[in-house]
Amino acid sequence: MTRQKIAVLGGTGKEGSGLALRWAAAGFDVTIGSRELAKAQLAAAELYTAVGQDSVHGMTNRDAAAQADIVVMSVPYAAHTCTLESVRDVVQGKVFVDVTVPLDPANVRRVKLPAAGSAAIEAQQLLGQAVRVVAAFQNISAEHLKSLDHEIECDVLVCGNDKDAKMQVIELAQAAHMQAWDAGPIENAVVVEGLTSVLINLNIKHKVKAAGIRITGIPRP
Amino acid sequence: MTRQKIAVLGGTGKEGSGLALRWAAAGFDVTIGSRELAKAQLAAAELYTAVGQDSVHGMTNRDAAAQADIVVMSVPYAAHTCTLESVRDVVQGKVFVDVTVPLDPANVRRVKLPAAGSAAIEAQQLLGQAVRVVAAFQNISAEHLKSLDHEIECDVLVCGNDKDAKMQVIELAQAAHMQAWDAGPIENAVVVEGLTSVLINLNIKHKVKAAGIRITGIPRP
Repeated sequence: MTRQKIAVLGGTGKEGSGLALRWAAAGFDVTIGSRELAKAQLAAAELYTAVGQDSVHGMTNRDAAAQADIVVMSVPYAAHTCTLESVRDVVQGKVFVDVTVPLDPANVRRVKLPAAGSAAIEAQQLLGQAVRVVAAFQNISAEHLKSLDHEIECDVLVCGNDKDAKMQVIELAQAAHMQAWDAGPIENAVVVEGLTSVLINLNIKHKVKAAGIRITGIPRP
Repeated sequence: MTRQKIAVLGGTGKEGSGLALRWAAAGFDVTIGSRELAKAQLAAAELYTAVGQDSVHGMTNRDAAAQADIVVMSVPYAAHTCTLESVRDVVQGKVFVDVTVPLDPANVRRVKLPAAGSAAIEAQQLLGQAVRVVAAFQNISAEHLKSLDHEIECDVLVCGNDKDAKMQVIELAQAAHMQAWDAGPIENAVVVEGLTSVLINLNIKHKVKAAGIRITGIPRP
């Protein structure tokens, strides 16, 4: 298998840069995407410094998506629709991983669902059925990702309608030292997106930075 | 504090009878409610045999709710509205714990949300704001509950708008040897109800009976 090319749209943000760091360290060809080329290139240079891999690039979101095998998107919900529209034609047929959480700026601790049910369903509707949309990584605090020697004490719940695409994402999670589970069809992404508000609640109430979840009752691989 | 009276509506079902067993064993005054008095009394007799406590009763759902301090409801979603309507006037001002999960009979592995967002929000709307609705215990497999010496490897996420009511439910969970967490306002119950479909998915895929979740990243009490 040739080395997979991963694009991380919104890869200059905390969550996106953390995922990019983990995958670059695992040896993937990683391209950080941003609305602004200069910001993407700066983040890519920082990532290169951190991991010493020459397979790190910075591009606009659209160019990053166009050259990638797997496209991961981690943007604020306010930028969700416009980012999807900007890459729609260049992600057809690809695995598209939506990390977006539709947090309500008025109260991030309270679940507020988009009209379609979840950000992931919105993505599937906007990109079309030929795009293999997978929802994942929404519960992994950026705190967990930023340091490579930190053990990530949170499982990844992976939702989507394409089993092979979900398997690829589970392998991506494992490569980044996370335990991931097939959590069912894309309709189930509402649970995973909403769980982020529950975890934010717990973070605030218990004065921690990275509350998470573990699946129990199943032998861990 | 006098011993609290707990009613478990739908207490003849697997989940309800498991909760009743745990609370009776912990010394609470437990009344099992059912649509049919005879079925409630039979289940109460079985519970008496199991725990040897004389503080176990069987009544119709309505009578059970009327005499209780805390009312817990665990019914199939198809019976949710009619059970709520049958007890509405006798639960005013009380803590009302909704364990109902709005599973889709056509596919229990896929989250399908009620129009109001969740069963718990439907309960709050139907019972009115004077009832202190708390959503909890939806993710605890009945497998965990039925045997008293079994360690319950699943946390309880507790949602509701009344902090004192949530604290009472967290204490009820602890009395039954479960770790429980305040998961935020009642809007967040959608996550906990939907999570049951995710866990059913995992049960089927991994051939287990009681997949669950644990909250991580917070010191356990």
